[in-house]
Amino acid sequence: MSDKKMVESITSMDEDFAQWYTDIVKRAELMDYSSVKGCMIFLPAGYALWENIQSLLDKRFKATGVENVYMPLFIPESLLQKEKDHVEGFAPEVAWVTEGGQEKLEERLCVRPTSETLFCDLYSNIVHSYRDLPKVFNQWCSVVRWEKTTRPFLRSREFLWQEGHTVHETAEEAEERTVQMLNVYADFLREDLAIPTIKGQKTEKERFAGAVATYTIEAMMHDGKALQSGTSHNFGDGFAKAYGIEFTGRDNKLHNPHQTSWGLSTRLIGALIMVHGDNEGLVLPPHIAPTQVVIVPIQQKKEGVLDACRGLADRLSDLRVKVDDTDRSPGFKFAEQEMRGFPLRIEIGPRDIENGECVVVRRDTHEKTTIKLDQAESYVKELLGRIQQDMYDRAKKHLDSSIYDAKSYDEFKTLIDEKPGFVRAMWCGEQDCEDQIKADTTATSRCMPFENNEPISDKCVCCGKPAKHLVIWGKAY
Amino acid sequence: MSDKKMVESITSMDEDFAQWYTDIVKRAELMDYSSVKGCMIFLPAGYALWENIQSLLDKRFKATGVENVYMPLFIPESLLQKEKDHVEGFAPEVAWVTEGGQEKLEERLCVRPTSETLFCDLYSNIVHSYRDLPKVFNQWCSVVRWEKTTRPFLRSREFLWQEGHTVHETAEEAEERTVQMLNVYADFLREDLAIPTIKGQKTEKERFAGAVATYTIEAMMHDGKALQSGTSHNFGDGFAKAYGIEFTGRDNKLHNPHQTSWGLSTRLIGALIMVHGDNEGLVLPPHIAPTQVVIVPIQQKKEGVLDACRGLADRLSDLRVKVDDTDRSPGFKFAEQEMRGFPLRIEIGPRDIENGECVVVRRDTHEKTTIKLDQAESYVKELLGRIQQDMYDRAKKHLDSSIYDAKSYDEFKTLIDEKPGFVRAMWCGEQDCEDQIKADTTATSRCMPFENNEPISDKCVCCGKPAKHLVIWGKAY
Repeated sequence: MSDKKMVESITSMDEDFAQWYTDIVKRAELMDYSSVKGCMIFLPAGYALWENIQSLLDKRFKATGVENVYMPLFIPESLLQKEKDHVEGFAPEVAWVTEGGQEKLEERLCVRPTSETLFCDLYSNIVHSYRDLPKVFNQWCSVVRWEKTTRPFLRSREFLWQEGHTVHETAEEAEERTVQMLNVYADFLREDLAIPTIKGQKTEKERFAGAVATYTIEAMMHDGKALQSGTSHNFGDGFAKAYGIEFTGRDNKLHNPHQTSWGLSTRLIGALIMVHGDNEGLVLPPHIAPTQVVIVPIQQKKEGVLDACRGLADRLSDLRVKVDDTDRSPGFKFAEQEMRGFPLRIEIGPRDIENGECVVVRRDTHEKTTIKLDQAESYVKELLGRIQQDMYDRAKKHLDSSIYDAKSYDEFKTLIDEKPGFVRAMWCGEQDCEDQIKADTTATSRCMPFENNEPISDKCVCCGKPAKHLVIWGKAY
Repeated sequence: MSDKKMVESITSMDEDFAQWYTDIVKRAELMDYSSVKGCMIFLPAGYALWENIQSLLDKRFKATGVENVYMPLFIPESLLQKEKDHVEGFAPEVAWVTEGGQEKLEERLCVRPTSETLFCDLYSNIVHSYRDLPKVFNQWCSVVRWEKTTRPFLRSREFLWQEGHTVHETAEEAEERTVQMLNVYADFLREDLAIPTIKGQKTEKERFAGAVATYTIEAMMHDGKALQSGTSHNFGDGFAKAYGIEFTGRDNKLHNPHQTSWGLSTRLIGALIMVHGDNEGLVLPPHIAPTQVVIVPIQQKKEGVLDACRGLADRLSDLRVKVDDTDRSPGFKFAEQEMRGFPLRIEIGPRDIENGECVVVRRDTHEKTTIKLDQAESYVKELLGRIQQDMYDRAKKHLDSSIYDAKSYDEFKTLIDEKPGFVRAMWCGEQDCEDQIKADTTATSRCMPFENNEPISDKCVCCGKPAKHLVIWGKAY
C-alpha cells in the first residue's frame, strides 16, 4: 500500500460526514464486519480503546464503592415479563434462544438486552434487612438488541457496555446515587475523553422503560448532531414491587427498596471519532490512546538510529510508547500515525542524533517542534497534558458556539434546518409537541438541562401554551 | 448470624468433599444460582477473583505480543459446519437463537461455544501476505455449552474464559506458540495461583475437536482428582484449509497458514478452592486475593482504636487492605476472614496500641504473631511473600506424594480405587485401552507428560502389547 493510497482513501468530512466516519473506522482498523448481519468485530485498535475506557471508568466506579459481578446471558421469558413497561420497551427487539443441546426448550430464553430483571431477581434473594443495603453492583458485558439498521459502534445488534444496578434503603439515597453516577460519567468524558457534555433530565417520552427519572449526558459531534453518551436512571420502587424485593427496615416493618441503573457503551468510541477526528483520520486524547507516542526512525538502517529510538523509548517507558521499526517507509509510518490518531510522533534520524535533537509532531495540530533529545522526557509529558487540555477546549468551544435559542417555531425550524448544532427552546411538557417537532424537523428532545436552564420565554415553542421546561433539542445518532 | 453458625455450616472435606466445596462456594459468597437452569451468578467475591486472574494473565499475554479483540456472540449455522471434526464436537451441546426482533431467522445462529469458526472467517478476510503474519489475537468473553449436569465454576451452561487464536507462516512457528502459551499458563498457575501442574500432551481421544495436538496443564485437587486447568492446541493447517485462509508466501506462492488456539476459564476458581481451601473455608494465595489484609479493630469504640487501624491501612496502601469497621463482633469478623480466605488478619485493640503492637494472623496456617506496629509494613509484605511460597510448596508436596506407578492392570485398578491421586502407567497408544480403563475404573488419560516420562515398563498396562507412551491417569472434574 503506498503512502498516497492511505491518505487518498478518506472522504473529507465536509463532503460526506457519514462516509468519512466509515472510512476512519475501516482505515484505522477499529472494526470489521462479521458474517453475522448487524454484529461487528472489534479489531485490536478498536478493542484497545474499550479496554482503556473500562480501566479508567472502572477505577472511578470502585472509588464510589461499586462492586463488579457477572449475571447470566439469558433471561427466561417469564422473568422478563414481570415489569410491564420494561417488557414493552424491550420485547420487540430481543433475540430468542429456543433450542439447546438438540432439544426444544420448555421456555424461551431471551439474550439479555439489559439485565434489570436478573439483578432484581438476585436482589429479591439476597436483600432481607436494611443492613444488607445498599448494594452497588455493576457488570461489564455484551448485550443484544435486534436492530434493523446498524452502524459501526453507534448501533449494532450486539454491543459492549457496563450496566450498574443498585438498591437503596431510601428514595433520597437512590436519587443521590443516580446523580452521582451521571457525574462520574460526565467527569470521565471531560477529563479522560476530552469530550464536553450537557447534563440533564430526559422527558417522559425519552425515559428508560420502567424508570421514574432518566438523566443523560449529551455530547455534540463535529456535524452538530447529538450523541447520548451515558444515562443514569432512578427506578423508584417500581421494579422492587414487580420483583418482590423487600427488606425489614429500621422500624422493623417490611419495605420495598429504591433502585437505580446506569450504563455507558461502546457508542463512546463513535463519539471519540466524531468529536476529535479530522480529515487525516482518528485523533485520540492522550489519556485514552493505546499508543501515546510513536517513535519513527529516519534512515533506520544507518548506525545508531534504531539504538537512539529505543533508548528514547526506554526513557519514556512509563508512557504507552512504541518504536515503529518495521521496514515500511517513514512516509507510510507518518500516514499511519495520523490515521490511527496517536497523539505524538517523534522522528529521529542521523542528523538529529548528530545535533542531539529529535522532531516532535502533534497529531491534533500537526505542529512540529525540534527539541533537545535530553529534554525529551519532560517535554513529551508536559506536551501530552497540553494536548489533552487543548482537545477538550476545542471540543468545548465547538459545543458552546453551536447552541442556539429559538423563541418562535419558525425560528426553531430554520435553526434546526440550517445550523448544525442544538437548539434551546421552551416546552409545555406535552408529548404531542415533542412528536410534532420530531415529525416536522427530525429533532428530538435531548434533555432538560441541569445548568443554564433559565426560561427564555414563557410559551411552548411549538403550541404556544404556557411553558414548563427549557429543553435542548437536536438531531441525534 | 452468630459466629457459631458461620463456622458450623461448613461440611468437613473428609466427610463429604462435594458438599464441602458447595458450602464454601455459597458461604464465601462466590456465586449464587440464577433463574436460568445451569447458569450461575458471579457475586462480587467470586468475580473479583476472575478480575484478578484476567489482569495478571492478560499482562503475561501482552508481554508475548498478544492483542485483544472481541468477536460476535453468534455463529451462523453454515459457518460452524465448515470444519467437520469441529462441528461434530460442538454441535450437540450448543444453544440456538431462532428468533430475533419478533421474526423467525432465516438461518439459525448458535451462541458461541468457542470461536474458532469466527476467527477463521476473520483471518480469511485480513490475511493475504506473509507480511500480515503472525496474527496473535485473544478475546475475553463468555461461552455457552448446553451441559446436562452442572457444578459451580466447574461446569455450567455459561462460563467466562479467554480464547487465543493465532495464525502463523510456518508449522514450526505455530508449534512454538502452542508450547509458549502452555508455559504461560503453567507459570501463571505456579507463580500467581500457587498451583503446581503437570504439563503434557493429550491423547488423540482427549484432543480438541479439529486439532492436530492438544497440550494441557493438569492440577490435582485435595481429593486427588485432576482438574484440566488450561489447554493449548496446535491446529496445523486444517482449519485454514476448511475456511480458505491463504497467504502469498516469500516464494510468491499461495499457502495455508498454521494456527493455534488456547484457553483458560473460570474453572480455575474451582481449582483455587479445591487446591487451597480447608475446613474453615477458602484460602487465597496473596497474589490473587481481592483483599490481602483485613484489619480488625478490637473494642473499636475505644478512643484511638479505629484511628490506629486506619493509620496502619494507610501505611499498607500499596497492598489490597481493608479495615473492617462494621458493627459486628470481632469473632464474626475473624470467622468471615477465614471463610473468605483473606491471607492475613491484623488485630489491633487498646492494649496493643499501648504496647505499640498488633497481632498478625495467617489464614493458611492460623499462626499468630505479635509484632511491633512500626515494623508492620516490612513484616506484612515479607509475610505475604512467604505465604504465597508456602502455599505453593504444600500443594506441590501433595501433588508429588500422590502420584503412583502401576506396572500391572491389577495394581492400576487397586491404586485408582484406593489411593486418591494420579497413576503413571504405560500405554500402547490404542483408544480401545483408554476406553477399557475408563469403563473399569472411571479414570481417564490426563496427559502424556513432557517431563519425568521415562518408560516404567515396556508393556501397555491394559492390554500387555508393546507400550508407546507413559501416561498419567486419574479421575477428573
